[in-house]
Amino acid sequence: MAWRTHTSRVVYENPWIVVREDGVTRPDGTQGIYGYLEVRRPSVVIVPITDEDEVVLIRTDRYTLGRTNLELPAGGTDGEDVLVAAARELREETGYAARELIDLALTTQLKGVTRAAQHVVLATGLHHVGGEEQLEEGIESVEHHPWSDVLELLRRAELTDGESAAALMYAAVHLGRVH
Amino acid sequence: MAWRTHTSRVVYENPWIVVREDGVTRPDGTQGIYGYLEVRRPSVVIVPITDEDEVVLIRTDRYTLGRTNLELPAGGTDGEDVLVAAARELREETGYAARELIDLALTTQLKGVTRAAQHVVLATGLHHVGGEEQLEEGIESVEHHPWSDVLELLRRAELTDGESAAALMYAAVHLGRVH
Repeated sequence: MAWRTHTSRVVYENPWIVVREDGVTRPDGTQGIYGYLEVRRPSVVIVPITDEDEVVLIRTDRYTLGRTNLELPAGGTDGEDVLVAAARELREETGYAARELIDLALTTQLKGVTRAAQHVVLATGLHHVGGEEQLEEGIESVEHHPWSDVLELLRRAELTDGESAAALMYAAVHLGRVH
Repeated sequence: MAWRTHTSRVVYENPWIVVREDGVTRPDGTQGIYGYLEVRRPSVVIVPITDEDEVVLIRTDRYTLGRTNLELPAGGTDGEDVLVAAARELREETGYAARELIDLALTTQLKGVTRAAQHVVLATGLHHVGGEEQLEEGIESVEHHPWSDVLELLRRAELTDGESAAALMYAAVHLGRVH
């Protein structure tokens, strides 16, 4: 037996998100409520890898976390084509343009309590063009980490951003670096 | 300049989540609102790998997605020790117990609009003990996929669960399988 929805009401919304509370029957037949957040537009996370096999990461002041976070560049698609959005976010957050962008996967995030779609885009053939809007985005630094160092950051749990770890997995598999 | 919070109000809450809308000044000095969802307890996602190098995945009817989702076992910690919670979720969702559980990383998920902490736990030395509560959890099947097949599912973007992809990355790095 699948989930059934009896009622659905919007309990909060703003231009970016909608929060709903639904009255449901669960797969086991019990009744209850289900509160969840829907992100209106798909987001995109970019894995920028330089010709020197470095990953471009940023440190961003994240309001939700109350601290600076080491992460891949990412942002909303604002209804644009995913590769257009990826190119824009990459430039705004790092000042780089890419000769090749590949949409590796359309993923879902935190599916227990959200409906949030996120594209993973691999960016290679990077060249610096400027045009960063980092202050607006809360970005404190743009860092180049050799691929092997990124693996070490993950192994030591110093890179803890789930979206970045997932995106790096899709990139690693695509590049034939996982066995 | 960092974010500043001027006001904060709870716009929705239930036993599992709290949604807030804060009035903020952004790092660039502009003012606005920030709506975000806080998950009350850390969650845990388990990477169960059998002695035959198979990953135990489940197909779960996900209310938020409106479809069945291929994913790693996961759940809330309910205030328990993370490894206790991991062992419980693993048994409830797959019927397996593990001889070794390792807390690989404490990650954050979907940090643009949520504050959600998730532990990644590697489970090895698996033996079937039963005691599944799959109907309650909406689980439709428990599947064993050879590690190489899991990589292929990621490469073809057939495994699209972001939390699972991230957890597999931490496991792959821990096991020395990424280069």
